[in-house]
Amino acid sequence: MFRPEIKVIDCTVRDGGLMNKWQFDDDFVRQVYRALCDAGVDYMEIGYLSSEKAFSRKEYGAWRFCAEQDLQKVIGRCEKRIKLSAMADIGRIDYEDIPPKSESSLDMIRVACYVHQVDAAIALAHHCQEKGYETTINLMAVSTVGLRDLNEALEDLAKSRVPIIYLVDSFGAFYSEDVDILASKYIERLPGKTIGIHCHNNQQLAFANTIAGIIAGINFLDATLYGIGRGAGNCPVELLLSFLKNPKFRVRPLIECIEKQIFPWAKKIDWGYSIPYMITGVLNQHPRAAMAVMESDHKELVTDFFDQATSTTEMV
Amino acid sequence: MFRPEIKVIDCTVRDGGLMNKWQFDDDFVRQVYRALCDAGVDYMEIGYLSSEKAFSRKEYGAWRFCAEQDLQKVIGRCEKRIKLSAMADIGRIDYEDIPPKSESSLDMIRVACYVHQVDAAIALAHHCQEKGYETTINLMAVSTVGLRDLNEALEDLAKSRVPIIYLVDSFGAFYSEDVDILASKYIERLPGKTIGIHCHNNQQLAFANTIAGIIAGINFLDATLYGIGRGAGNCPVELLLSFLKNPKFRVRPLIECIEKQIFPWAKKIDWGYSIPYMITGVLNQHPRAAMAVMESDHKELVTDFFDQATSTTEMV
Repeated sequence: MFRPEIKVIDCTVRDGGLMNKWQFDDDFVRQVYRALCDAGVDYMEIGYLSSEKAFSRKEYGAWRFCAEQDLQKVIGRCEKRIKLSAMADIGRIDYEDIPPKSESSLDMIRVACYVHQVDAAIALAHHCQEKGYETTINLMAVSTVGLRDLNEALEDLAKSRVPIIYLVDSFGAFYSEDVDILASKYIERLPGKTIGIHCHNNQQLAFANTIAGIIAGINFLDATLYGIGRGAGNCPVELLLSFLKNPKFRVRPLIECIEKQIFPWAKKIDWGYSIPYMITGVLNQHPRAAMAVMESDHKELVTDFFDQATSTTEMV
Repeated sequence: MFRPEIKVIDCTVRDGGLMNKWQFDDDFVRQVYRALCDAGVDYMEIGYLSSEKAFSRKEYGAWRFCAEQDLQKVIGRCEKRIKLSAMADIGRIDYEDIPPKSESSLDMIRVACYVHQVDAAIALAHHCQEKGYETTINLMAVSTVGLRDLNEALEDLAKSRVPIIYLVDSFGAFYSEDVDILASKYIERLPGKTIGIHCHNNQQLAFANTIAGIIAGINFLDATLYGIGRGAGNCPVELLLSFLKNPKFRVRPLIECIEKQIFPWAKKIDWGYSIPYMITGVLNQHPRAAMAVMESDHKELVTDFFDQATSTTEMV
């Protein structure tokens, strides 16, 4: 039996773009969009909503900004069969740069923040709601947050009008038991709200932890085609749809899109399980040092990386 | 807190050899052996015990046979700090080809069998015990076994003198809930015995399902360096040791061995998550068709493979 409350949010372009500065051409994004529509996926997160002041169009592709004219190129004249989402980072978007919903093809704006930014995130999310959007707040890197700070943030979120709050394992550090405990805490402290989960695959646990979240009662599930995403990548959407029992889902369009659109990128950029990402995951560290190694000519020198990463820890 | 009953069995050479017909040179096996000793791993499964009549030495490397003179080359004159295991397949080894323990460096013989071979497996395991070895029976492909057949096999195993029985997810088809249910059943129906688990990574769940097994009370855990193994591979031993809290374990020797010994093989043979293996895992099918695709020049034509594999199923 499937749980009708469960929604799948594909983050292929948004999170995958963190690996190539969103240098996806229009055809790539259009083919991903069509595949997700055909597969019955509920939301496509197509990029970040950023001010042009915060990032240069020369350096970053269109999906760092999600301008309406770019969205139109993807949707075309066909019936829109999937909701579109964009992520907004605190401090990288001005309120006036967010168009009213009536002028945008976006349906949802997800606000990503660290625990100390919760108040700013709630204000931005409320602003987006007032402009007509669905909203979520994605509280990042909670694996590094102390209990008191987390409880205070959840208290603030509980008082907010934001209906969907995400549990985010930014560093790929969680085991299923961590997801069990945190999901229960979020559900208990955020009565009436929907909980989402966004996992990274540093320890090959992104899909497993998403399942742990489902079992604990989480209903908004992030995933990407073939796991593409920053560092070790995300929960693979082809695995997630195969697991979920909702008969509206189709896996074949995803497989075809992976073959034609994702495999060529897999030859150009490195995401997925690797020893540097595994080490930062185990150590509950930001993946930036591991990404630097993976992008260098020395990505096979993993023992050196282990020695550096563990020099201030007890890992042996 | 760690559970002292937990033992880790590295199957790098035995299961990895299924991908290259055990064409590992002596130095490779010696370096793996030393790394596992230094890491504090409990057992090294170094290959299969097979009769020379069943396989040709021309086609297969030394670790298809595990002859004593080959074991000696690996151990050398150093102190033996790890137990050695070999796997025996029903029908591929004659009783008289198994040396008495006093003439062998092997400590354990693991008998792999399908459910209809349980009686033969028990007889072979008893024979190995009488010759002085520790033994296990690894009941393969239980994801395809009906309830009555499984119950009967467990009844036979309960009556045997074999002390360790393995739950084996040969096709990488299990979710953690399957492991929960089957582990509980094995523990309940095999009183007094130790339960082991051997997972495959078709759905990126080998490590997660091994953790699910630990939580359910399973104490013998199979893993391999960087997940090397047949098809989608196994639970990565570097992740498993990082998860377990036993202070005797060291991760660094594994990382160094992966860098120096496993990465070169990763350029020559394809194991790990891929769409064909994912499809056979989801469909609960033997990986042989997926392996044929991955070894062909058409390993990227995954939509064709999807269409063939699902032509007789309900997967869409």
